[in-house]
Amino acid sequence: MLSARAVVLLSGGMDSAVCLYQAKAQGFSLYAISFRYGQRHSLELECATALAAALAVQRHLIFDLSAEAFAGSALTDAIPVPKDGSGVGVPVTYVPARNTVFLSLALAWAETLAARDLFIGVNAVDFSGYPDCRPAFVSAFESLANVATQGGPYRIHAPLLHLSKADIVRLGVELGVDFRRTWSCYDPDRQGLACGACAACRLRLEGFAAAGYADPASYLPHP
Amino acid sequence: MLSARAVVLLSGGMDSAVCLYQAKAQGFSLYAISFRYGQRHSLELECATALAAALAVQRHLIFDLSAEAFAGSALTDAIPVPKDGSGVGVPVTYVPARNTVFLSLALAWAETLAARDLFIGVNAVDFSGYPDCRPAFVSAFESLANVATQGGPYRIHAPLLHLSKADIVRLGVELGVDFRRTWSCYDPDRQGLACGACAACRLRLEGFAAAGYADPASYLPHP
Repeated sequence: MLSARAVVLLSGGMDSAVCLYQAKAQGFSLYAISFRYGQRHSLELECATALAAALAVQRHLIFDLSAEAFAGSALTDAIPVPKDGSGVGVPVTYVPARNTVFLSLALAWAETLAARDLFIGVNAVDFSGYPDCRPAFVSAFESLANVATQGGPYRIHAPLLHLSKADIVRLGVELGVDFRRTWSCYDPDRQGLACGACAACRLRLEGFAAAGYADPASYLPHP
Repeated sequence: MLSARAVVLLSGGMDSAVCLYQAKAQGFSLYAISFRYGQRHSLELECATALAAALAVQRHLIFDLSAEAFAGSALTDAIPVPKDGSGVGVPVTYVPARNTVFLSLALAWAETLAARDLFIGVNAVDFSGYPDCRPAFVSAFESLANVATQGGPYRIHAPLLHLSKADIVRLGVELGVDFRRTWSCYDPDRQGLACGACAACRLRLEGFAAAGYADPASYLPHP
């Protein structure tokens, strides 16, 4: 019998990597989709490609999105990435409606593939203030998907939604995720070392520490 | 006082043209967005550009989307466009999740523009079986937009939703739409003449006839 197909949003970060392994563990035939949308660096997409190869996905689609509609974020523009760990509310690294756009394109692809299951690694615990990482967003998108298409019924799987970063590390270790093939840092140096100071590095380092595992990523030495 | 901004989805078809004029009539400052997604021809986008210029919109963004995720539609692939006017259910010209993708990108742009109003020319009366032209789709997208973003509250305006094609023609005439600058045909000839036989041409011709106006579009002569 053929496995049901799942479309997995794969950024190359640790959360989407764990998501991909989770979809595999649930027996889905894997279709990974990544986006090139004017990110500051390509290290995340290189990790996505390595992860897709490691799990022998059926297909890995890297979708080119003109970055113009996403202007105004520190992830895509020349706005400095904060390094002080402070800040309340929505951070400057928020990219407008990003997960809405990504899920919409994943949904379009799913419909052509006759896949009814979409996986996204959003996380509401350590979500750093992004509105499109909340449970209400995931369920609103699932409702939309089921009226927007002729396929379905669709399920939006967000298996990390209620996990802490430490839980995500533990789940990843259990599923055999090779965390060397994942990228988190918003602002690496030119040699591809993680800064260790941006919000994404902090969350990652705290997650590994709390889970009791060593983070295999390479960081800039700190004084 | 500055006018509020609206993002208008502008395909270059007659419905989106009427929508653009409607947004103008409501006093919005206009931002038009169009998509290049592997359509069979560029006549619609040429009309979109002409309409945007005619109304002196603040900005007209033509967004390039790789067509790959939209495979499998007669509007983007080498599948013949039906000419017999028959068919039930969802037609082969349906493009998977198209309006979801378009509205998502429009929403991202709206968020960067601090615009809270989006206009889309979907129509549930003559909607030819497209799931993403129904009232349930529009309200599901509005609900999504309001949990997916940090801006808002957003309103998705679909002023043509409950109008017949004849009503749309009448409204367009009232608003001063130049219908020569609108394109409907799915399958024009190389000289840019409309076929007069595809579902889009039929709807358009019937709409003009029922409204009692002459359609200024140029059609292939029929035997």
